Amino acid sequence: MVHNGIEYGLMELIAETYDLMKRGLGLTDDELYTVYDQWNRAELNSYLMEITANIFLQPDNKTDKRLINAILDQAKQKGTGKWASWDAMDLQVGTPTIDVAVIARDLSGYKAERKAANKVLRGPKITFRGDRKAFIGQLKNALYAATIITYAQGMALLKQASNTYGYGLNMEAVARIWRGGCIIRAALLEDIKMSYQKQPELVNLLVDPHLSKELMARQGDLREVVSVSANLGLSAPGLMVSLAYFDTYRSAWLPANLTQAQRDYFGAHTYERVDQKGVFHTEWGSP
Amino acid sequence: MVHNGIEYGLMELIAETYDLMKRGLGLTDDELYTVYDQWNRAELNSYLMEITANIFLQPDNKTDKRLINAILDQAKQKGTGKWASWDAMDLQVGTPTIDVAVIARDLSGYKAERKAANKVLRGPKITFRGDRKAFIGQLKNALYAATIITYAQGMALLKQASNTYGYGLNMEAVARIWRGGCIIRAALLEDIKMSYQKQPELVNLLVDPHLSKELMARQGDLREVVSVSANLGLSAPGLMVSLAYFDTYRSAWLPANLTQAQRDYFGAHTYERVDQKGVFHTEWGSP
Repeated sequence: MVHNGIEYGLMELIAETYDLMKRGLGLTDDELYTVYDQWNRAELNSYLMEITANIFLQPDNKTDKRLINAILDQAKQKGTGKWASWDAMDLQVGTPTIDVAVIARDLSGYKAERKAANKVLRGPKITFRGDRKAFIGQLKNALYAATIITYAQGMALLKQASNTYGYGLNMEAVARIWRGGCIIRAALLEDIKMSYQKQPELVNLLVDPHLSKELMARQGDLREVVSVSANLGLSAPGLMVSLAYFDTYRSAWLPANLTQAQRDYFGAHTYERVDQKGVFHTEWGSP
Repeated sequence: MVHNGIEYGLMELIAETYDLMKRGLGLTDDELYTVYDQWNRAELNSYLMEITANIFLQPDNKTDKRLINAILDQAKQKGTGKWASWDAMDLQVGTPTIDVAVIARDLSGYKAERKAANKVLRGPKITFRGDRKAFIGQLKNALYAATIITYAQGMALLKQASNTYGYGLNMEAVARIWRGGCIIRAALLEDIKMSYQKQPELVNLLVDPHLSKELMARQGDLREVVSVSANLGLSAPGLMVSLAYFDTYRSAWLPANLTQAQRDYFGAHTYERVDQKGVFHTEWGSP
């Protein structure tokens, strides 16, 4: 289930890079093949990257176009992604990249509503200003960073499930087995395997000494890609929440104190303090 | 349950604006009171806005600070938000703003992990460059747009639940009852009530003639706020996925054709075509 959740997340991230290069930069299918094929030759090397590259070469035996352009943009699912999201919410782990991947498939199914909405809701003109080749390099780094973050979410879910349900999972073995052969097999799983070999009790892959450096080196490009997608009007929820997960997890302080104040204000749900133990309630008053 | 899901979403959006103004712009508690009080006097008028403003004035009876600064940044929850997210995923509706609000509360609870991660994962320096007063105006518009989008997700969930479970809900009556008195009571519910009065079978509030104009007028500011939060390193998952929901819903074409191609490639799950009915399978080959 967690394998499939990660798979959903990675497929959504790849689809978002496809959209940014197709609608954003206007790349042809041949160019898309070349980009994904090159990405597959370095740190993004994976089975999903390999088949993605190949897909753009596949001819359609019913028309003279590439098959990809004849395929309807409505994604189906068998429910394993939803199951992973449900369990993550139940265990209060937080797997936002997996969750929005499930939602992206759901919303793709509303094709008739989307076509009608497109006539009403006008967005910005999709005009990329900037260096196209440099942007493709940024996309590659953004995808790799978000890929690490997606595995981190999935592994955190697996670890919490192991703790809660008493599975006694060996995380290094999980990474090794997945590396051996499955849909999400990837060069990155070698790094993940090494990480758990050195630190079997690592709480989150984001703080692994090696992976944290890979992330920090690429965060600027992930930020830029999120910014560009927001400004072009091309939806990129997977890249966005991957960045948000990174920024939330590395933040010693979060604005959740306001949430606690609101809950105590409207519902007397109490709050904790930073300077002493216990739970407290205040009779909040108008000024 | 849906009421509470919307409440989670709105509280997360408000918390994100607080973070952007506190850590991003360096506003004091008095200045935050003034901003939220002013926002409460126009289209954002709501009970949550009113209590948010008041919270920043509340003195702490144990110290000489404002109480908000003594409250621990770990948000609790009673599970109603998770329940809404679960049901939305089950009904394949898509309520990403509610989902990330649940996750934000979950991740706030990992205070010790966050403090440790903060020592490892360095982000950009939080230095806002730009016109602070203009940015506060953009934040207001971004919050209002995301608020409309959050209600739209919640109402779509309620409508689908009504269809699936045969509730026969009168959406106008729901908006009227919530307007009358509850935690999410807001001036916007008057617009929503009018919308359903005119169009009882409206599929999504985003395409309401009035609300769609409000959204289009503010989308540029929402895009800018998402871009700024990404670049400052301040996590804003609620604002981000609200924008992504808007951009997904208004898109006649989505890159889900690639997802379908991948699923057929690795699992023979078949795909649909744009030019004829039926389901199809291809023997995908390497180039």
